[in-house]
Amino acid sequence: MSEAPQKTIMVLNGPNLNLLGSREPETYGNLTLPEIGKMIKEHAQNHDLNVDFRQTNHEGTLVDWIQEAGDGADGIILNAAAYTHTSVAIRDAIAAINTPVIEVHLSNVFAREEFRHHSFVSDQAAGVICGFGATGYVLAIDAFASMLRVN
Amino acid sequence: MSEAPQKTIMVLNGPNLNLLGSREPETYGNLTLPEIGKMIKEHAQNHDLNVDFRQTNHEGTLVDWIQEAGDGADGIILNAAAYTHTSVAIRDAIAAINTPVIEVHLSNVFAREEFRHHSFVSDQAAGVICGFGATGYVLAIDAFASMLRVN
Amino acid sequence: MSEAPQKTIMVLNGPNLNLLGSREPETYGNLTLPEIGKMIKEHAQNHDLNVDFRQTNHEGTLVDWIQEAGDGADGIILNAAAYTHTSVAIRDAIAAINTPVIEVHLSNVFAREEFRHHSFVSDQAAGVICGFGATGYVLAIDAFASMLRVN
Amino acid sequence: MSEAPQKTIMVLNGPNLNLLGSREPETYGNLTLPEIGKMIKEHAQNHDLNVDFRQTNHEGTLVDWIQEAGDGADGIILNAAAYTHTSVAIRDAIAAINTPVIEVHLSNVFAREEFRHHSFVSDQAAGVICGFGATGYVLAIDAFASMLRVN
Amino acid sequence: MSEAPQKTIMVLNGPNLNLLGSREPETYGNLTLPEIGKMIKEHAQNHDLNVDFRQTNHEGTLVDWIQEAGDGADGIILNAAAYTHTSVAIRDAIAAINTPVIEVHLSNVFAREEFRHHSFVSDQAAGVICGFGATGYVLAIDAFASMLRVN
Amino acid sequence: MSEAPQKTIMVLNGPNLNLLGSREPETYGNLTLPEIGKMIKEHAQNHDLNVDFRQTNHEGTLVDWIQEAGDGADGIILNAAAYTHTSVAIRDAIAAINTPVIEVHLSNVFAREEFRHHSFVSDQAAGVICGFGATGYVLAIDAFASMLRVN
Amino acid sequence: MSEAPQKTIMVLNGPNLNLLGSREPETYGNLTLPEIGKMIKEHAQNHDLNVDFRQTNHEGTLVDWIQEAGDGADGIILNAAAYTHTSVAIRDAIAAINTPVIEVHLSNVFAREEFRHHSFVSDQAAGVICGFGATGYVLAIDAFASMLRVN
Amino acid sequence: MSEAPQKTIMVLNGPNLNLLGSREPETYGNLTLPEIGKMIKEHAQNHDLNVDFRQTNHEGTLVDWIQEAGDGADGIILNAAAYTHTSVAIRDAIAAINTPVIEVHLSNVFAREEFRHHSFVSDQAAGVICGFGATGYVLAIDAFASMLRVN
Amino acid sequence: MSEAPQKTIMVLNGPNLNLLGSREPETYGNLTLPEIGKMIKEHAQNHDLNVDFRQTNHEGTLVDWIQEAGDGADGIILNAAAYTHTSVAIRDAIAAINTPVIEVHLSNVFAREEFRHHSFVSDQAAGVICGFGATGYVLAIDAFASMLRVN
Amino acid sequence: MSEAPQKTIMVLNGPNLNLLGSREPETYGNLTLPEIGKMIKEHAQNHDLNVDFRQTNHEGTLVDWIQEAGDGADGIILNAAAYTHTSVAIRDAIAAINTPVIEVHLSNVFAREEFRHHSFVSDQAAGVICGFGATGYVLAIDAFASMLRVN
Amino acid sequence: MSEAPQKTIMVLNGPNLNLLGSREPETYGNLTLPEIGKMIKEHAQNHDLNVDFRQTNHEGTLVDWIQEAGDGADGIILNAAAYTHTSVAIRDAIAAINTPVIEVHLSNVFAREEFRHHSFVSDQAAGVICGFGATGYVLAIDAFASMLRVN
Amino acid sequence: MSEAPQKTIMVLNGPNLNLLGSREPETYGNLTLPEIGKMIKEHAQNHDLNVDFRQTNHEGTLVDWIQEAGDGADGIILNAAAYTHTSVAIRDAIAAINTPVIEVHLSNVFAREEFRHHSFVSDQAAGVICGFGATGYVLAIDAFASMLRVN
Repeated sequence: MSEAPQKTIMVLNGPNLNLLGSREPETYGNLTLPEIGKMIKEHAQNHDLNVDFRQTNHEGTLVDWIQEAGDGADGIILNAAAYTHTSVAIRDAIAAINTPVIEVHLSNVFAREEFRHHSFVSDQAAGVICGFGATGYVLAIDAFASMLRVN
Repeated sequence: MSEAPQKTIMVLNGPNLNLLGSREPETYGNLTLPEIGKMIKEHAQNHDLNVDFRQTNHEGTLVDWIQEAGDGADGIILNAAAYTHTSVAIRDAIAAINTPVIEVHLSNVFAREEFRHHSFVSDQAAGVICGFGATGYVLAIDAFASMLRVN
Repeated sequence: MSEAPQKTIMVLNGPNLNLLGSREPETYGNLTLPEIGKMIKEHAQNHDLNVDFRQTNHEGTLVDWIQEAGDGADGIILNAAAYTHTSVAIRDAIAAINTPVIEVHLSNVFAREEFRHHSFVSDQAAGVICGFGATGYVLAIDAFASMLRVN
Repeated sequence: MSEAPQKTIMVLNGPNLNLLGSREPETYGNLTLPEIGKMIKEHAQNHDLNVDFRQTNHEGTLVDWIQEAGDGADGIILNAAAYTHTSVAIRDAIAAINTPVIEVHLSNVFAREEFRHHSFVSDQAAGVICGFGATGYVLAIDAFASMLRVN
Repeated sequence: MSEAPQKTIMVLNGPNLNLLGSREPETYGNLTLPEIGKMIKEHAQNHDLNVDFRQTNHEGTLVDWIQEAGDGADGIILNAAAYTHTSVAIRDAIAAINTPVIEVHLSNVFAREEFRHHSFVSDQAAGVICGFGATGYVLAIDAFASMLRVN
Repeated sequence: MSEAPQKTIMVLNGPNLNLLGSREPETYGNLTLPEIGKMIKEHAQNHDLNVDFRQTNHEGTLVDWIQEAGDGADGIILNAAAYTHTSVAIRDAIAAINTPVIEVHLSNVFAREEFRHHSFVSDQAAGVICGFGATGYVLAIDAFASMLRVN
Repeated sequence: MSEAPQKTIMVLNGPNLNLLGSREPETYGNLTLPEIGKMIKEHAQNHDLNVDFRQTNHEGTLVDWIQEAGDGADGIILNAAAYTHTSVAIRDAIAAINTPVIEVHLSNVFAREEFRHHSFVSDQAAGVICGFGATGYVLAIDAFASMLRVN
Repeated sequence: MSEAPQKTIMVLNGPNLNLLGSREPETYGNLTLPEIGKMIKEHAQNHDLNVDFRQTNHEGTLVDWIQEAGDGADGIILNAAAYTHTSVAIRDAIAAINTPVIEVHLSNVFAREEFRHHSFVSDQAAGVICGFGATGYVLAIDAFASMLRVN
Repeated sequence: MSEAPQKTIMVLNGPNLNLLGSREPETYGNLTLPEIGKMIKEHAQNHDLNVDFRQTNHEGTLVDWIQEAGDGADGIILNAAAYTHTSVAIRDAIAAINTPVIEVHLSNVFAREEFRHHSFVSDQAAGVICGFGATGYVLAIDAFASMLRVN
Repeated sequence: MSEAPQKTIMVLNGPNLNLLGSREPETYGNLTLPEIGKMIKEHAQNHDLNVDFRQTNHEGTLVDWIQEAGDGADGIILNAAAYTHTSVAIRDAIAAINTPVIEVHLSNVFAREEFRHHSFVSDQAAGVICGFGATGYVLAIDAFASMLRVN
Repeated sequence: MSEAPQKTIMVLNGPNLNLLGSREPETYGNLTLPEIGKMIKEHAQNHDLNVDFRQTNHEGTLVDWIQEAGDGADGIILNAAAYTHTSVAIRDAIAAINTPVIEVHLSNVFAREEFRHHSFVSDQAAGVICGFGATGYVLAIDAFASMLRVN
Repeated sequence: MSEAPQKTIMVLNGPNLNLLGSREPETYGNLTLPEIGKMIKEHAQNHDLNVDFRQTNHEGTLVDWIQEAGDGADGIILNAAAYTHTSVAIRDAIAAINTPVIEVHLSNVFAREEFRHHSFVSDQAAGVICGFGATGYVLAIDAFASMLRVN
């Protein structure tokens, strides 16, 4: 298959995910975020998908990026981290665009503190994947490959 | 009446309101935010009021602007959108200044999800107007005209 | 414009609003209810709207009047006062008719007791205006003028 | 002491109290409401107090009467019965007048269903007396005698 | 069987039921309330039962009527509509009389808003029938026929 | 009328209903379950309806039977007893089929423990009948006769 | 009337009531506890009742005294103050004896903090009197005089 | 690669999943359960994994099977359907074995009724995948392939 | 003492108890369920009591067995395990029979997850014993020996 | 076996247990507390255990005694009665010592008021026994005999 | 500086703090309470403050001491331990005096059980210090030195 | 002691604290934030500690700074102001680093609105100091001096 007009998946990472690899490795694993980004991009190539991989600690920036993806991306993999549980602004951004969103969490949020059991994102997402560490992003790429019917 | 020393109303719009016109028009109407801004400014001229119309997706920027209005504006029309329901920081900014605030929502928030029924802003505001679409801003200008006793 | 076939707004006031002017003026202002009624009627003439202004302390009477307005009025401005927070009957009456309702409160109910924060009316109303004292009725007339497209 | 300008206590009874004597006598006692009214009036004469004794099944009528007492009575003994637990309108009427109110219940409401443990009236009342049957009205008369400093 | 001393069932309808036929027919059906009343009366004749069919928008009037039925009727079919969910006064009236009450709702209240899932009437009623439209009244007549052992 | 192609109502009884007649007769009556089944079948013959009457203590078996009814029966009368309050599986089975369900309870569940006031079945059912003892099944048969327009 | 075999009312005061007169007089009045005790004793003589007036800051001592009253007193007037809201031990003591208890509070507890709205004592008491300051004790003596049928 | 000693994934499906294809296809998709089973088995062959695919409407049978998997399987894909939200027994079975479990739901449970937002299984599972329809099972197989390090 | 007509205690064990000895031994101890059954039977012989010891993972089977015990056993020792916290069916079975039930738990359920603190069984049981491991069954046998007055 | 160095069990009884025998015998039995103490001591002799049996109405004294037992006793049987449900101080005392505690209640607290269903003691105790009357203490002695491995 | 008229800080320690040093040292540290008392007294000398250091397990005694401090001390450092979370009596004592109170906890109560997150004392205190072990008392002395403007 | 390699405390101030001195001085005091910063730096010099003093209105910037402090500071004094009550992102940043955090609030948050009683920060902090105004920062410096064992 030609490399020609690739579809793009925007992978958006929220607060403190830039610390991955150093932060509580028993919970989040040993890979750093750039390493995960590299892994995902390579995996996405198998499906002829382009990946735009970003991280921010700012809620407003996540809103900006989701809006941006609403115009230019074919799918969003969103790990909003802490903002998952507190941000109506991110929820509204997802509701305002047509690009489908897959919610991913590295850890099993349901096995953690009570306040992590509720997500403002989930009911606006196409689906949710959590608890598989960095593999979760890979599964999300596969899910988008299936949804977007690329090989 | 002379144009001389006009009073200024700062109209602050929160996250995702920049998408107006495209986002869920059945809920929010067909006007874009710049179109609404233009309409409000023209209407305010009838009351000899100046309008400073802004939008941001960032909670902290709304706090910055409210503080700025505390020094230089005579009234604030605040549509904090999603942050209405989650931001104590915005509430505290309103409590910290003397400039009166009118809370406006385009949609009838009480007819939507449960979590939109609570506002951290309302009890710090002079009044609340919701459900009238862009007309709500116009009513708020009129209310300020009445409060500030401009014609 | 001719005075000919005017549209009618029914303004319905609930329990204890007949005491306005004497009751807690720091909360509700100094105008008596008849004075407010007169002010509204005059203002409505600017929009060529007729006003039918009433008050009752009886929940059932409010239901009767809302049903009556369902047949003969073009809009309802409803300040159900205390019944706002307790009356499903009033809510059902609004749901049963096609005449649009604007909910008005003189005081900012959100800055008062917790039990005043919930309204059985709001999600059935076209919009809500609260905290502006008697001016709130005026804004509601303007809102109806805009909705009903009278000048 | 002369009978001259007596002060008046309005004793207002709410829904179903007209059934006293027949309704659940093990809870409410065997006296009928007129018998209680007669007893109270005679007792009040000892304190040179006049009693205006009424009953209604209508919430709005209780609001009307409380407003009336706000103008012409020196005290209100209020047994709002079921409306105690559901009526914000009655609460607002009490808050709107200056005449002091004593809340009375024949039965011990705290030993009954959970929904009877909350009163919208109590925090607006001067005091609460419950559980003493018809004697509760007598104690309330004595309390008013003490408050109003009649012998 | 002779027509002689018929037993009487009082059928009491609460707020907004006078709008039946026009109000949300997909929820409440197309029959008007008088048509339903006629249907019930005819059906009751099969069981040699007399029907006294009434409607009011006033809570207090429902209390009055229930008390009246306590003296003169053999059964009450009560569709208190909105007051079902808010009226302790109606509940107390039922508790104060010996006449059995069957609670009927046209719609399936359990498939509607959360606040309609609680009834102050149900635990004081002999039984509850809901969701069958006007047929519910007919079933209630049959239930009374069975309870009262008329043919 | 000929016995020809009868419609079938499946009457499904849940846990402990096999003990009827011995278990708390003051609450559930003196009839045994087979006696009730016989009574219902005879009554249904009047409407030319066939009755398939069953009981089980197993939640999964109720699910199996509801699925079976989804294929072969014209209506289900379901008294899921204790599973009413705890079984999402039964609810889902009802939602998954097109056969209408009438929920029946012998006792007035609303006059019993708090946990019996919620039913996972009710909002999926066509209607609810409770508090009439074995007569409730008869009423449900009549309701089906009406719904299915058999004489 | 002879002084002969007087009946005894034990008046038990809980924590911090020994500070009366100095503590928040706007809430509790200017009388000291001994002054109140003297007033009550004198008033009780009118009914030929003896008063045993005590105060303690210790929950356990209140339990001891209630048990003691169970043997030797004819009535208890209990102002358990703060323990009203937290003590199951005091509640159990009341339940364990046959001597009737009248619960008294100087202030209107329902107009104060939320946690003061619940009493572990009330549903075990014969009746409740609150909000009348020291007069509340006098009313309680009168209530006991009535209950115990002394003149 | 040889077919030799394959690892086995037990795929356990709960109540009403046997109706897939007919039941609410807009929610659950058009594939029947056997078709999904076939698809999964073929996909698992790519990872040299064996699949044991089962369905039951009985909670106890799911417990039995999870215990069985604790001895003989290398992984469990569990779609407990309705029992997800009500079964502590299934949770305890998972906790009692060492075989890892992946929780799968066809629909996005977080976009459905409130009672489906809580799972007794999630915090005992290795991870959760929901909202992807039958693709969710495929992703779970891939996740196990990754966890179990088969190619 | 002769072996003649022994009384029988049915010991019913719920889901996952068949895994005892292997499952989380630090919580549940090292004895297997058959070993515990043997121990209990031997101990019961000291009191001349017969023991019928069973285990099932099925809620419905526990209901069946409790009904069976209602006819043939003199006491039930019930460790319903997970169903303790979710089964109204089991509760109703206990309420429906006259045979006394002692609730036993191996672990101290109050020191575990919040959802294990509520039991649908406890208030229907004669008593509760928990936290003593297998010894709890022995104590329950002794308690029955005392209750049934065997030596 | 010699009487030599006996182990000691401290049996601590909380408020109002000194009234046993007179207080609500249908709930607590007819034995007085000294009679129970005597019975327990004799039973403990069978296990060569010494019993130190005490009662107090004071929470602080229970804390003192638990601390004392932390130094000198081998086990504590604690019936904290009302303090069970309100005392964090007693809970902390148990947590601060190493002596094991068995919580005993004469009545089945789970069949009584809601507020008695929570115990601050239970999750700090080794085990809980309730509902067996005075026999509960005997079972607790047996449990300690087993735990402490005396014969 | 002269020793002349020193100000006095009363340091009041609640239940189980007498066990410090032995009780859960990982939570509370290794210092005994007398050692902490000595350390505080020496530190207070730097500020020319006298320290009166006490401990009790009795709630009532804490009330007594707070009242005593209301007359003779210039500040109270209160570590009410378990009573912090349950005692309205202690709260009322603080409210009744004018002496300022600083609330201190050795451990970080917010990182412990949920029921320790609420304090009845905090909103009556001048300030709160927690989580610093014995150093917390020293900081409180410094805070009083600052408040009382001693060097 | 030499000034050589000083340790650094980062003092991070959240939203609206830049308004100190003007904003509600009765609550927050008269000092401006720069004045407080100067005071703290001077005080820290006594302990040979360096202070890095910052303020922002942006949640994300606080997260950035906490991460920065995780690498280069020895302690963090965090007054997150409004974000204290709403930010999981800040909480996660604290959990992700090893630098200890002391939470400081100028006002006594427990004496203010209910929503200020919960902090997402507290259970991740080493300790909490609140209610002492600017002195709270000084106490926190002292606490760090003690923790870090500088003179």
